[in-house]
Amino acid sequence: MTSQTTDQGLQLRSLVKASGELEVSLQPTPTVEPGPDDIVVRIEATPINPSDIGLLFGPADLGSIRSSGSDDTPAVTADVPPRAMTMLAARVDQALPVGNEGAGTVVRAGASPQAQALIGRRVAILGGAMYAEYRTVKAADALPLPDDATAADGASCFVNPLTALGMVETMRREGHTALVHTAAASNLGQMLNRICLKDAIALVNVVRSDKQAKLLADAGAKHVVNSTSPGFMADLIAALTETGATIAFDATGGGRLASQLLTAMEAAAVARMTTYSRYGSDTFKQVYIYGGLDVSPTELTRSFGFSWALGGWLLTPFLQKIGAEEAGRLRQRVVSELKTTFASHYTREISLRDVLKPDVIKAYTRRATGEKYLINPTLP
Amino acid sequence: MTSQTTDQGLQLRSLVKASGELEVSLQPTPTVEPGPDDIVVRIEATPINPSDIGLLFGPADLGSIRSSGSDDTPAVTADVPPRAMTMLAARVDQALPVGNEGAGTVVRAGASPQAQALIGRRVAILGGAMYAEYRTVKAADALPLPDDATAADGASCFVNPLTALGMVETMRREGHTALVHTAAASNLGQMLNRICLKDAIALVNVVRSDKQAKLLADAGAKHVVNSTSPGFMADLIAALTETGATIAFDATGGGRLASQLLTAMEAAAVARMTTYSRYGSDTFKQVYIYGGLDVSPTELTRSFGFSWALGGWLLTPFLQKIGAEEAGRLRQRVVSELKTTFASHYTREISLRDVLKPDVIKAYTRRATGEKYLINPTLP
Repeated sequence: MTSQTTDQGLQLRSLVKASGELEVSLQPTPTVEPGPDDIVVRIEATPINPSDIGLLFGPADLGSIRSSGSDDTPAVTADVPPRAMTMLAARVDQALPVGNEGAGTVVRAGASPQAQALIGRRVAILGGAMYAEYRTVKAADALPLPDDATAADGASCFVNPLTALGMVETMRREGHTALVHTAAASNLGQMLNRICLKDAIALVNVVRSDKQAKLLADAGAKHVVNSTSPGFMADLIAALTETGATIAFDATGGGRLASQLLTAMEAAAVARMTTYSRYGSDTFKQVYIYGGLDVSPTELTRSFGFSWALGGWLLTPFLQKIGAEEAGRLRQRVVSELKTTFASHYTREISLRDVLKPDVIKAYTRRATGEKYLINPTLP
Repeated sequence: MTSQTTDQGLQLRSLVKASGELEVSLQPTPTVEPGPDDIVVRIEATPINPSDIGLLFGPADLGSIRSSGSDDTPAVTADVPPRAMTMLAARVDQALPVGNEGAGTVVRAGASPQAQALIGRRVAILGGAMYAEYRTVKAADALPLPDDATAADGASCFVNPLTALGMVETMRREGHTALVHTAAASNLGQMLNRICLKDAIALVNVVRSDKQAKLLADAGAKHVVNSTSPGFMADLIAALTETGATIAFDATGGGRLASQLLTAMEAAAVARMTTYSRYGSDTFKQVYIYGGLDVSPTELTRSFGFSWALGGWLLTPFLQKIGAEEAGRLRQRVVSELKTTFASHYTREISLRDVLKPDVIKAYTRRATGEKYLINPTLP
C-alpha cells in the first residue's frame, strides 16, 4: 500500500524569526503516515486566496522581499515592521505550513473500507498545509469530485463557495430577507451574485469602479452601486429601499464604508417611519466585516440610531455553529453546481517554486479584481 | 372624582421650527382625561437625565440660547446648525413633550378598582411628558412606592436602575461572566457598582480622572482603571485577565475607547492561547454603545481578531425583549432596594420655570460627573 515516491514531498512553509524577518521556503517534508481512516492526497491544484496570503506573508513589508535559500531549498525573505512583531508573538520561530484548500488524487489510504474506497479518486480537501506535494487527511473530510471534474475545477470547493453560501445562510438565520456585499466584483462576489440570482434573493452589489459595475451587470446583477461615484449614498439608499436589505458583508473593513452601509440602511428605515424618535428607527441593521482589504481603522459616524451591530464574520466558526449535517448539505450543493454557480476562473497556474519568485509574488499579492492564481504542485 | 385644579397644568415642550430654531417653552395644557384604567399623577419630582437633554435641546447650539416667550408662557430659543436639520426632519413643527420618568401623588383615577385603589398613593411612572404638573398613565404601569419613600426617592426608579440591571442581565443572557463599564463614575455607574458588589459580579470600572477613580474605590469598587493614565492599556489588560470580562457597556461612543476595550479583551484572550491563529482568538468579545458623551466618530483599529461585535444598546428594546414578567421582576428589585442600591443623589432641585433659565440650562447641560438635577413641578 505504500509507494516509495509518496513518502516525502516538498512543502511550503512561512517562518517569522525573532530577528524580525519572515522567510517563506520550500522544505522536503515526510508525508504523514495515514492511520486506518486516513488518505494521502497528491495535491494537483490549490488556489491562492487572500487568507492564504495573510498567513504566507502576514504584515511583512512586501517591498523588502528578496530571494534567499538555495537551489535545493529555495526561499524568500522579507522584513516585518517592528510594531507588527508583538501581534505575531505566538507564531515566532514556528515554520507554519500554508494553503487552506486544494484538490488532487488519492494515492494511498489506511486500512478502513471507507479510506480504501477512495484510492484513485479525485477529491477536494480543506484544512491547511495544501501548498505541498502530499497531504494526509481523514477520508471522511474529503469531498469526492464528479468524474468530469478536473483538479482545477475542484481546487476552490470550500473557502469561496462556503463563504458565499454562509452569507446567504446567515442572512436567513438572522431574520433578514436581502443582503449587501462589498468588493462585489471579486471571485467570491461573482459567486454570491450567481447564488442570489438562482435562489431569487435580492443582493446589493457594492463595487469600486464602473468597470466592476459592468462586469456584474453583464452577469445579470440587478442592484450594483459604485462607492467611488458622487451619487453613491443616494444610489445605495435607493437600492436598500427597493430590496429591504438590512445585513451587509464587508470585505474591506477599514474606512467609512461600514458606517455608510449602516447610515443608508437607517435612512431607508426612517423613511418608512411615521413618528419621530431621537433614538432612530427600531429596524435592526447588521454589518459583518469578513476581510481587511482596507487596513485603515474602521470609522463609524453613528448616524444610524441604536439598533445596529457590527462584527467579525469567519467561515470556520460559522460552520461549527450550524453543525456537521447542515455544513454537509452546503458542501453537497457546491459539488452539484461545481461547474456553474461555483465555477472559479484562474489567471495563471504556477508551480510551488514559482510561489517563491519575487516577480510572481508581486503579481499574486496585488489582489486585483478578477485575478486569481492556482498552484499546481505537480509542475516542475 | 374630578377637581377643578387638576384639569389643566403647565407642560414643557420642545419645538424644532422649519426656520432652524429650537424653542423650549412652558405651555398650559389640558390634562388628559383618565379612562377607566387610568390615573392622573401630580408630578412632584422628575430627574434631568442625559436622554432628556437630548430630546430637550437635540443638536441645537447651546451657546446661542436666549430667553424668548412671555411671562405667561416663558420660553428659550436656540439655533440648530443647518447640517443637523436633515436628521430632525421627522420632528419639525411638532411641540414634543419631554421627561422620561418621575414620581408623584395620584390625584384622580378612572372607575376601575385597580385605578381607584391608587388614589392618594405615591407612585413612580415612566413614559415621557413628565416635565409637567400632571400626567395621565395606565394604573398598571405605575410603580407604587413604599410609605417611607419621598417623590425624590422614587423619581429615578426606571431609567438608571433598569439600565444598570439590564446590563447585568444582558451579560448573563449572552454568556459572559464579568463586565466592563465606561464613564463608570456617573450616577448610573455608581449604581452598577453597587449592584455588582451585592451580586458578587466582577466589574471593571473605566473612569477619566483620579478623582473619579477615588470616588469608586471609596464605594468599594475592586477594579478601577483610568483611561487618561499612561498605563491605561496595561492596567485594563490586567483587570480583564483577572476578571475574565468579555462584554463592555460604553457610554462615550466616540473615539478609540471601544476599540481599546476590544483590543485589551483580545490581548487577555490571546495570552491564554497555546497555538497561533492569524484570525486571533476564538473568544467572543462584545462592546455595546449605549450613549454618546463623545460625539466624534467611533474608530476601530480591528486589532482584535474576528470574534467580536459592537452594537447599540437601549433600555426600551431590551425590556421588550425580556418580556413583561421579567421586566416586572427587575422593577420590583428597584423598589425593594430604593434607598440603598438604587439611591440617586441630586445636586439641585429646580422648578419648571427654572428649566428655561439660560444660566440654569448651562449648569444642567454640562453633564458633569456626580451632578444631577431634579425638577419639582410643584415649586412656584
